Amino acid sequence: MKRIAVDMDEVLAKYTKKVLKTLKEETGYVVDQDAIKGKFLSKSLPPEYVEIVTSYPHRDGFFRDLEIMEDSQDVLLKLMDNYEIYIVSATMQHINAPRDKALWLRDYFPYIDFRNIVFCGDKSIIRADYLIDDHPRHLEAFHGKPILFSAFHNINEHRYDRVKNWKEIENLLSTSF
Amino acid sequence: MKRIAVDMDEVLAKYTKKVLKTLKEETGYVVDQDAIKGKFLSKSLPPEYVEIVTSYPHRDGFFRDLEIMEDSQDVLLKLMDNYEIYIVSATMQHINAPRDKALWLRDYFPYIDFRNIVFCGDKSIIRADYLIDDHPRHLEAFHGKPILFSAFHNINEHRYDRVKNWKEIENLLSTSF
Repeated sequence: MKRIAVDMDEVLAKYTKKVLKTLKEETGYVVDQDAIKGKFLSKSLPPEYVEIVTSYPHRDGFFRDLEIMEDSQDVLLKLMDNYEIYIVSATMQHINAPRDKALWLRDYFPYIDFRNIVFCGDKSIIRADYLIDDHPRHLEAFHGKPILFSAFHNINEHRYDRVKNWKEIENLLSTSF
Repeated sequence: MKRIAVDMDEVLAKYTKKVLKTLKEETGYVVDQDAIKGKFLSKSLPPEYVEIVTSYPHRDGFFRDLEIMEDSQDVLLKLMDNYEIYIVSATMQHINAPRDKALWLRDYFPYIDFRNIVFCGDKSIIRADYLIDDHPRHLEAFHGKPILFSAFHNINEHRYDRVKNWKEIENLLSTSF
């Protein structure tokens, strides 16, 4: 059975949506969604706001209530018929994130066994056939077949097969096992 | 550069020593060290004590103050000259363990980058050249070269190269890179 490694933030969970909402609520600063396309938040916000948004993921509980990506629950459950699924999140720089993320996965993906969850820092350590991820740096490091999940920051990335949503993942992988 | 994955409990940290100490302090029950040789604690204690000791790793802070294995700091630092070192702990069933273990690693192995720490459930997901581990089930699942670190429960295991301490790891790996 082939193995798919699936990233969390921007693939299963709407991380940036919560970051921008929190920034607006706490500082009043509204990010122009068009202005950040093709760039990371850390490269597109004024420095004083970069410092604020990079502090959020260190907060206890920040990852606990992210919204879920449309269709991810249904498609991942279907893919489990033909693939081994591992959730792989690069989150070791945030001391509270593994606990919050594990609890979030228990809520939204109760059918994912705890043994199939991996928290790491560098995805070159992952042994799998596919990696679905929004971050080019993780796809670069990965040794299997990379699949880019569309996100605001990666619109100019053309090196990888791209999927825009979970229905496209279903179509792409329903015949490859 | 070849890559070594290193387990934590019973390899870098004295997990069972704290379990037995806690059991004695809290219940008065003293484990006969000879009686548990070659068996897991879960297979060698009376059932009522098995339930108690398996609850310990779920406690917040349990992994925070484990004693460190002799020579592990010095040898790991030396090995970093010739190998990539990843710390790989199968700990996803304990919700507080990743935080406690990451903080413990910061204290005792500050030279290990957070990107080189992995918390998982199943070590078949790990892509590395060597795995140093006391658990045969992880060595079985691993796809590189397995190295068994001696522990009370694995004395009858003969399928793998065995090291009894960190000085033996240094000798074994100082010429293999």
